[in-house]
Amino acid sequence: MAPKYAPSLRRLLPVLAICLEIAFILIFIFFVQYDDSYIQDETQSKKRKTVTTVYADFQDVHVMVFLGFGFLMSFLRRYGFSSTGFNLLVAALGVQWATLVNGFMFEFSDGKIRINMMSLVTANLCAASALISMGAVLGKTNPVQLLLMTLLEVTSFIFNHWLLTTFIKMDCVPSIMHHHVFGAYFGLMVSWALHRPGLRQRHEKEKSSTDMGKFSMLGTIFLWMFWPSYNSVLIEGKAEKMNAVYSTYFSLAASAVTVFAFSVLISKKGKMNMVYIHNATLAGGVAVGAAATVIPSPWIALTIGLTAGLICILGCWFMKPFLELAFDIHDTCGVHYVHGVPGILGVLIRIVIELATASNLQVAWSEAAFYLLALYITLALSLVLGLVTGFLLKLNIWKPDQKYFDDQAFWEITTIPSPPPNTQFPHLAVKL
Amino acid sequence: MAPKYAPSLRRLLPVLAICLEIAFILIFIFFVQYDDSYIQDETQSKKRKTVTTVYADFQDVHVMVFLGFGFLMSFLRRYGFSSTGFNLLVAALGVQWATLVNGFMFEFSDGKIRINMMSLVTANLCAASALISMGAVLGKTNPVQLLLMTLLEVTSFIFNHWLLTTFIKMDCVPSIMHHHVFGAYFGLMVSWALHRPGLRQRHEKEKSSTDMGKFSMLGTIFLWMFWPSYNSVLIEGKAEKMNAVYSTYFSLAASAVTVFAFSVLISKKGKMNMVYIHNATLAGGVAVGAAATVIPSPWIALTIGLTAGLICILGCWFMKPFLELAFDIHDTCGVHYVHGVPGILGVLIRIVIELATASNLQVAWSEAAFYLLALYITLALSLVLGLVTGFLLKLNIWKPDQKYFDDQAFWEITTIPSPPPNTQFPHLAVKL
Amino acid sequence: MAPKYAPSLRRLLPVLAICLEIAFILIFIFFVQYDDSYIQDETQSKKRKTVTTVYADFQDVHVMVFLGFGFLMSFLRRYGFSSTGFNLLVAALGVQWATLVNGFMFEFSDGKIRINMMSLVTANLCAASALISMGAVLGKTNPVQLLLMTLLEVTSFIFNHWLLTTFIKMDCVPSIMHHHVFGAYFGLMVSWALHRPGLRQRHEKEKSSTDMGKFSMLGTIFLWMFWPSYNSVLIEGKAEKMNAVYSTYFSLAASAVTVFAFSVLISKKGKMNMVYIHNATLAGGVAVGAAATVIPSPWIALTIGLTAGLICILGCWFMKPFLELAFDIHDTCGVHYVHGVPGILGVLIRIVIELATASNLQVAWSEAAFYLLALYITLALSLVLGLVTGFLLKLNIWKPDQKYFDDQAFWEITTIPSPPPNTQFPHLAVKL
Repeated sequence: MAPKYAPSLRRLLPVLAICLEIAFILIFIFFVQYDDSYIQDETQSKKRKTVTTVYADFQDVHVMVFLGFGFLMSFLRRYGFSSTGFNLLVAALGVQWATLVNGFMFEFSDGKIRINMMSLVTANLCAASALISMGAVLGKTNPVQLLLMTLLEVTSFIFNHWLLTTFIKMDCVPSIMHHHVFGAYFGLMVSWALHRPGLRQRHEKEKSSTDMGKFSMLGTIFLWMFWPSYNSVLIEGKAEKMNAVYSTYFSLAASAVTVFAFSVLISKKGKMNMVYIHNATLAGGVAVGAAATVIPSPWIALTIGLTAGLICILGCWFMKPFLELAFDIHDTCGVHYVHGVPGILGVLIRIVIELATASNLQVAWSEAAFYLLALYITLALSLVLGLVTGFLLKLNIWKPDQKYFDDQAFWEITTIPSPPPNTQFPHLAVKL
Repeated sequence: MAPKYAPSLRRLLPVLAICLEIAFILIFIFFVQYDDSYIQDETQSKKRKTVTTVYADFQDVHVMVFLGFGFLMSFLRRYGFSSTGFNLLVAALGVQWATLVNGFMFEFSDGKIRINMMSLVTANLCAASALISMGAVLGKTNPVQLLLMTLLEVTSFIFNHWLLTTFIKMDCVPSIMHHHVFGAYFGLMVSWALHRPGLRQRHEKEKSSTDMGKFSMLGTIFLWMFWPSYNSVLIEGKAEKMNAVYSTYFSLAASAVTVFAFSVLISKKGKMNMVYIHNATLAGGVAVGAAATVIPSPWIALTIGLTAGLICILGCWFMKPFLELAFDIHDTCGVHYVHGVPGILGVLIRIVIELATASNLQVAWSEAAFYLLALYITLALSLVLGLVTGFLLKLNIWKPDQKYFDDQAFWEITTIPSPPPNTQFPHLAVKL
Repeated sequence: MAPKYAPSLRRLLPVLAICLEIAFILIFIFFVQYDDSYIQDETQSKKRKTVTTVYADFQDVHVMVFLGFGFLMSFLRRYGFSSTGFNLLVAALGVQWATLVNGFMFEFSDGKIRINMMSLVTANLCAASALISMGAVLGKTNPVQLLLMTLLEVTSFIFNHWLLTTFIKMDCVPSIMHHHVFGAYFGLMVSWALHRPGLRQRHEKEKSSTDMGKFSMLGTIFLWMFWPSYNSVLIEGKAEKMNAVYSTYFSLAASAVTVFAFSVLISKKGKMNMVYIHNATLAGGVAVGAAATVIPSPWIALTIGLTAGLICILGCWFMKPFLELAFDIHDTCGVHYVHGVPGILGVLIRIVIELATASNLQVAWSEAAFYLLALYITLALSLVLGLVTGFLLKLNIWKPDQKYFDDQAFWEITTIPSPPPNTQFPHLAVKL
């Protein structure tokens, strides 16, 4: 009764993955080495900080990228292996590729890329942009398509980052924080390009289950807890760093409380919905990201969290089915409302705060124009490059599968035989 | 077949949660700002420590409060969404409220509360007292009642903390460590006040299941691992901090070994019981909390762990059903034996150690009297205020539910339709 | 319907565990105290580092030992309580015993063992060697046997460590990193000694399930994420430490990508296999361990990760059933391929790197000979002492159980009664 092998897996995936890994090794041989500058200059306090303090923050971000995103996406009833497994595959490939692309774009000197703690952190954040897009196409792509999307998206995102920092002279941190917006709209376009009529009917396996809801809760809570590290890890100044930590913390707290309330309000039965709560709780962390260092007071962080949670839950409830029916944009994890809209909101908040606290309004307005331009470029690039990527992924050579939202397409799953009826483990039992 | 909506949720919860969140924002606007004193005084080593070192410890405590407690409580077979979800809601609201109350009581100067890393840590510990009480009433309250209990309990606990530090001149750290005792007895009184005759018969859903046991194990292990951070995060002196870390570590190790042994001894079938192990393993961390900085040798920590584990498992086995039958005090998670009795034990241990190691016995005896007085005040306040809170929560305006220990009362749970019989996913299958 | 009590548990386990715990306390009374040398010498930068920086790394290792190993081993369908529970028991006992043995062997002066942060880290790593062996015998031993094995193995491993550091003058860190090899071969020998003919037929419960696969994924990811801390925690020099972090990170990333590819290649149906992926993903971390400080370039780390992942997955696929059928060595978790072979590979890699980068080839060759000698001693000791331990554990006084891979032998498991057919929780339902 087991389905036939997935054509995409049998030959394409091993060949592609191994070729990529060997290509990475070859490029690393010629261009990448460890950064040993801090050895020659040990007394320099900044370098020392890079070595010791950042490692703990890096591990928090590492947990979010490899565990948090993977388990957050594991809410689909029959797609738990794929959600967590493909997340690991995409992230592991993404960090290697991002190290290379980032290195060539930003750290290339004397023919070498020098790796330090900050390279790993940045690589993790760039890989996260691919995981955000993966949330939009979850359950509708095979791992070959995911690997290709990762390569193209990480490249596109770093190209966008390079544009912003080079031509608009944007700072590194707010530019990288655009990865929420970039990842979300890139993913939506890929999802639109890959859309097929059959998707409309096959909604049964798209629901959550009580078991998977708890795994998804686990991922949500890890993301929720470590988000202050996520928003502050790249920041160098101590005061700005703590400002980002506090603001993210309060925004997330307000987000969580708000979301429980609205989850009940929008429900016909007047009950809470776990999937809404998982997603919308995190919107507070995204929305505060772009402005975290400049938020002057905690009440602003609370207000941002409340607003973002509200927007996210209303978006998931009202706009998600609308986009799906009207535009055929199917967004499995609702990344548009968790990352896309709150990300844009974050940039707008930053502009408002900078205008409100500016000493020189003229400078502030011109800076605001640059922020809007950066947002515009990010949106335009993510939409266009996402569309191109989507159509590339639609080619038949990647053998897209017809089986949606189902681990069986990709994983060896053991059939458990019927135990004797009076078993002690009834949750494993089934009458055949 | 789905039950009708929960009356408590439909209107009350959204209104209450949103009003609270907006009230918080209003109070924050006028009274709360970020602490920027460390910017003006960057060379001061103590402040620098606050900024960098404490953040890692804070994250450990954060994991315990938001993930550890939530998953520890998720052992009930049909209450996994509520345990983890309400834990997030209560903790997120609790930290905001605790930040305010703590600020007004202790940090208020020039009309402002200044937030720094230590405010967040203290707020987490105060919110934990509400989570401990929640363990006693788990499955028997609706989220509206939980929110009200959180507000009242956090206020009560900080009032108790203020009494101890102001009138008895107790140090901050041992005073806050009373939150185990306070939370436990407060919760027991609330549980007693909310008791209804129907509770005696409805024990079927109160059991654990093999699935939930593993989620609960996850929460237990996170609490167990990070408890050294929990007991040491507030301590400033380096030597005392490390003493607290080592003592907690050894106490927990002894606790874990002891508990496995006694779990078998008290079982009729001579087998281990997962629920006992989860709770009693953690008693070693609680018991060592009050005395962690002054324990002079590791063997004392080991002995405390062994004793606390033993007391907790015997309490859960023998006294828990007795309290339930004789006094109608139903304690879902056994917080009396995990937090209450070991917390009292911890204070007594501290007194004994201080007497044994004192150079001036007269001073030591008077200090011991103060410790006993503090314990007495804490017990009295927690019992009285818990009772008052309990009767307030019993009012019909909060629409207490009749459905105990069941996620269905509060959560939209998808019915999974019957798959074809020869399915690959038999654990999801059911013959209808 | 429940099986009769396990004879091993009813009397032996409580008596053994409590006697051990009391014996530990007695030894601690006379010989162990906290290290307070850093108080007298606070300005010494190295000691300060021990106190603050190492604590965060220690917690990462703590998570790996107590949570990672436990949940990694929880893949067996009906053995989840035992995998995670016995892991906690073995590790908690192991760290106490390792503190003592390590202390007497290495830190004993003035009749006292002085405990500091590094003692705890080392104790965790020594306890991990027992957890690795537990992986080989998982599901085929009772907890009494596991406790005895832990005592004997930790003693054996520290004896091996003492031999290497005393007679071959090996450095502490590479010597301790032999715990992968030691634990794996020790465990294999114990498994061989305990082998019984009945094991061949009882393979039904040895399979994984979709539920347990996700818990196992959780453990895998925690091990995977924190492995850079595991390989670097003992290293003192800052440059070497960062080298170990980077190398481990890249090796693991390459390992993960490789393993997905080969998991498909070796599958008959052309699908991925979760159990293979869990194990082989981690091989990259083990293989890089011995050489992590001296790896000169990241491409070498990538190559090691690729090779280790490949060897591990081929070993699990091809050699594991062969060893089982031909030599009756049953290796439940495949520790031979995750820890044994990659551990040996790591030592060989270290030799090659040291030869390739040596300025004085003669010195390098003699060092290489010492490394080979150390590996030889480790292999010989682990095999011999593992065999002795295995035969000791086979004695009937430990009442070995006949029920393999089944929680029911050891745990009180609640039977869930049949709910009404149109239940909301079909995953708990069964037709009786």
